[in-house]
Amino acid sequence: MRHLATLALALALPLPAMAQEAPEAAPSPGEIVAGAPADQWIAIPTEDLLVMTLSPDRDGTPRQAIIQLMPPPFSQGWVGNIRKLGAAHWWDGLAIVRVQDNYVVQWGDPDGEDAAKAKPLPKNLVTMSEGDYVLPWRSEGGEAVVTASGQYQAKKRAVENARQRSAAGPNVMVIPDGPPRDSYAMIASFYRGWPIAAGGVGSGSVWPVHCYGMVGVGRNDSPDTGTGAELYTVIGHAPRHLDRNIALVGRVVEGMENLSSLPRGTGPLGFYETAEERVPIVSIRLASELPEAERPHLEYLSTESDSFAHYADARANRRDPFFIVPAGGADICNIPVPVRRAAQ
Amino acid sequence: MRHLATLALALALPLPAMAQEAPEAAPSPGEIVAGAPADQWIAIPTEDLLVMTLSPDRDGTPRQAIIQLMPPPFSQGWVGNIRKLGAAHWWDGLAIVRVQDNYVVQWGDPDGEDAAKAKPLPKNLVTMSEGDYVLPWRSEGGEAVVTASGQYQAKKRAVENARQRSAAGPNVMVIPDGPPRDSYAMIASFYRGWPIAAGGVGSGSVWPVHCYGMVGVGRNDSPDTGTGAELYTVIGHAPRHLDRNIALVGRVVEGMENLSSLPRGTGPLGFYETAEERVPIVSIRLASELPEAERPHLEYLSTESDSFAHYADARANRRDPFFIVPAGGADICNIPVPVRRAAQ
Repeated sequence: MRHLATLALALALPLPAMAQEAPEAAPSPGEIVAGAPADQWIAIPTEDLLVMTLSPDRDGTPRQAIIQLMPPPFSQGWVGNIRKLGAAHWWDGLAIVRVQDNYVVQWGDPDGEDAAKAKPLPKNLVTMSEGDYVLPWRSEGGEAVVTASGQYQAKKRAVENARQRSAAGPNVMVIPDGPPRDSYAMIASFYRGWPIAAGGVGSGSVWPVHCYGMVGVGRNDSPDTGTGAELYTVIGHAPRHLDRNIALVGRVVEGMENLSSLPRGTGPLGFYETAEERVPIVSIRLASELPEAERPHLEYLSTESDSFAHYADARANRRDPFFIVPAGGADICNIPVPVRRAAQ
Repeated sequence: MRHLATLALALALPLPAMAQEAPEAAPSPGEIVAGAPADQWIAIPTEDLLVMTLSPDRDGTPRQAIIQLMPPPFSQGWVGNIRKLGAAHWWDGLAIVRVQDNYVVQWGDPDGEDAAKAKPLPKNLVTMSEGDYVLPWRSEGGEAVVTASGQYQAKKRAVENARQRSAAGPNVMVIPDGPPRDSYAMIASFYRGWPIAAGGVGSGSVWPVHCYGMVGVGRNDSPDTGTGAELYTVIGHAPRHLDRNIALVGRVVEGMENLSSLPRGTGPLGFYETAEERVPIVSIRLASELPEAERPHLEYLSTESDSFAHYADARANRRDPFFIVPAGGADICNIPVPVRRAAQ
């Protein structure tokens, strides 16, 4: 199962730095997000949300986490499997089995490795291959949105140019300019609300990246690529070495603290050593399957918007009163995409 | 209070890539660390360890975290204050007051902002200035260990050359080659066991960086630089925008999970909203003050050792069986410095 993503590329010459003297009280990234116009927020379809309900905590407080599934063109084979698993209520009664500090929280079937006891999977899951971790990336027209300077001032114009050029067809992926000097890839940027990385211009590939809160597909040693029944989320520093080695299928957009604050497992790799330590999963549901009154309505700040460019620039160059020295850059995972409840 | 660090610099021309075909079962980073010879581990003086004892958890299980204070030449004014606060048993009976998801756990005096109720500080704390966040960096001899390629194969030779050149005196800081393409600084590398970053060759400055588990000095808006009475540790993706804006004074080397898994605070910035939510600090002691039988003995893998170079290379290029595609790089915070209990 492969997708062909062609890339509309528009040359953006690095512009001279346009940063001006900071005004007296420059807005913080949070203030920029709070001030973003309503039309720069994009609703997340309830079809793309999974609602995970854990057993209540020791005080009886309910615990939920909401996961946004990754939209096309990435990882859609695994995402399709996850939709089927959710529709089958497959995870109900299973558990969080692993919490490794500064790494991942993982859930699924505690007996999944034991063929005699494993919970049967739905019959219609697709099998994915190693090659599906990335999308091939083909340059078209020899022009690139990407600039080495990473100037967000330049980005707006470049993205607009590319968007006009790419209006021709739906199979065109525009990768906008991003932060400079990624440690893992030629380019790191955002594509329709998701952090991505890519190889060299005109060749290579493009892939989603392992930032805090991203959700991926557990697997055994290669070439096994996992079904999507075993999932994890990142609870520490971005483990970018997993990029292109594991399928990323979504991200936690609400209730992350109910996963990240769980007790760490004391077994190898942070697995819980006894059944009692595991955290029971009451249910995992596609939000679209819930009664209307229970469906979460969430929206993200468009990563192609002016407000996001302003926010990303402020994350890279903090000018609010607390700060003395602006960093002059930010790595892709230090620019989390803002997500919030939509006004009803 | 300033330190002058001069820099012995040895030109290391980027060598051609020397990576060879991966052997059948390449060792994992953990296996490389486990196999490192005893003489490549460096004992951490008990004088540099703080033992933080929290109240037991709800099951009555004791909770401790051990912090290694940062050695010279960084942040020694604040570190000196912290030694005095520890010797005065100043933190005993205070609390963890803030847990912000994907950011920090912070502890100190819950009444610290209220002059009428704040716990008096020891009288002899020094006042530090903004300039003390970084060390001035002066190139000497026009040669640099730093290479843009970040080849760890090249590193070993370059470090050895630099070490020989720098044998002249104790005031010489050698910054070895590090991972390529840091998003925040010209150079990111390790110095005597600590992650550091630095500006351009021949100018700029050098500073420790905010990786997971690093401990820093809480403060109010600039130019306040804090005393060291209010401390925090990083529990999420490296907030590198805090580099050069806050003093880093150490890192958690054991028991991190007792901090990172605490319930997140629900107030602004993750502060706990009620006194009941706070986690009481029973005591914080310099390990050297404890009875000999209670002193922790820890050691770290020398960042100037062959084994560390091998480990760092393996972190950047995973070749153990799980992996399909080696990343080809690693950011400085994705190469945590190994620390372990010393054999007694």
